[in-house]
Amino acid sequence: MKIRFILLDTTHPGNVGAAARAIKTMGFSELALVNPKRFPSADATARAAGADDVLADALCVDNLDEALHGCRFMLGASARRRHLEMPLYDARQAALQVCHQAPHVPVGILFGTERAGLSNAALARCQALLHIPTNPAFGSLNLAAAVQIVAYELRAAMSTPKSEAAQGGGHKLHTPTSAERMQGFFEHLRATLEPLKFYNHKQSRTMDLRLRRLFNRAQPSDEEINILRGMLSAIQRGTCDVE
Amino acid sequence: MKIRFILLDTTHPGNVGAAARAIKTMGFSELALVNPKRFPSADATARAAGADDVLADALCVDNLDEALHGCRFMLGASARRRHLEMPLYDARQAALQVCHQAPHVPVGILFGTERAGLSNAALARCQALLHIPTNPAFGSLNLAAAVQIVAYELRAAMSTPKSEAAQGGGHKLHTPTSAERMQGFFEHLRATLEPLKFYNHKQSRTMDLRLRRLFNRAQPSDEEINILRGMLSAIQRGTCDVE
Repeated sequence: MKIRFILLDTTHPGNVGAAARAIKTMGFSELALVNPKRFPSADATARAAGADDVLADALCVDNLDEALHGCRFMLGASARRRHLEMPLYDARQAALQVCHQAPHVPVGILFGTERAGLSNAALARCQALLHIPTNPAFGSLNLAAAVQIVAYELRAAMSTPKSEAAQGGGHKLHTPTSAERMQGFFEHLRATLEPLKFYNHKQSRTMDLRLRRLFNRAQPSDEEINILRGMLSAIQRGTCDVE
Repeated sequence: MKIRFILLDTTHPGNVGAAARAIKTMGFSELALVNPKRFPSADATARAAGADDVLADALCVDNLDEALHGCRFMLGASARRRHLEMPLYDARQAALQVCHQAPHVPVGILFGTERAGLSNAALARCQALLHIPTNPAFGSLNLAAAVQIVAYELRAAMSTPKSEAAQGGGHKLHTPTSAERMQGFFEHLRATLEPLKFYNHKQSRTMDLRLRRLFNRAQPSDEEINILRGMLSAIQRGTCDVE
């Protein structure tokens, strides 16, 4: 399993260190940090304890594209049970899913800020949501604690017989395309639709998100992306200026 | 489920706060601290975030007896797979065990120090060990992270159908006696055996531990403890001074 833990806009460096330690205890090593507030930091190193190698190797970037580079299945950790048109798995189902149905697919798991969770822009890059069941009266999981549980479930899933995985949700994965191809498609889609005056000004963002969710849910393969983009190119070639 | 999380000889107050938060996120509230190095502490309160009520209500004592008071099933969290004659469950099995086979029994879960884990004296009070599977090359789980995983598994077990619990280990629990009755029995046992020169000086501690493990594994009920103590009393009455 190739799992990248991606932390977005973290504010407390201690949490970054604790997250590094958490993933290493469960046998993982890939950490990506998007726009961390303070990094590197002595607090992060202290809390990482013996996992300073994970910190040192962490990919530290200022945009999500780079953090997602190469990932083919993106899961967004979400505290809220959002009503999006996206599959929602609990941590255990998600781990079984990843482990048994997409064992060779590079996976990115996105964790939002300590305060606000994942932004809509980040959610729009995800194919599914991952939810950690908590006390309804106090669901305030610490970021590193959330990372710990997800990493723990992934490790546990590796030693779970396949038959149990079948109960983990019915969403079947073939080999989905990469994050960057998916993003390229969305940009192509927008560029194709814009001259067609498909977007009305007010709903432009909402429409974008809805389309993203729809296609993300489909988890197109490389081939399917080629087909879709061929279709877009054909549309573009056929598009006249609309006044 | 009545679960008490018992932290022994903690050195970092931040971990105590994080542990309080961890158990509250999973719907639990009973925290006991035995000999914490610094408590109360601003670090603990900060890391507890919204779980300061759990901290404020924490039982803070200087001996294990008080911390265990009323518990009838004691599980020791252990990083090492010790070769003791004690059932060893992984966190998931332990949670299913507690949840489905002893749902009305007050349970104490003991967590040792950040560095050394549980002392032999603390282990001697446990009926079973709980092990969190980790990376064999780096198993250094943070204390609060370990508490988080155990609390998470307990919450998950509550929503697991009973049929799965059957796979969780074959060790059946009736209603075991309380920690203090168990301790009373062990003291009675020792007092009974000592005049009999049962203990040779060198192996006295080891023998004590072995007996504890044996009886702990049996998890006697209140009635059985009465029977055993009646037996000890009979022995004591029948004991002559051995020279």
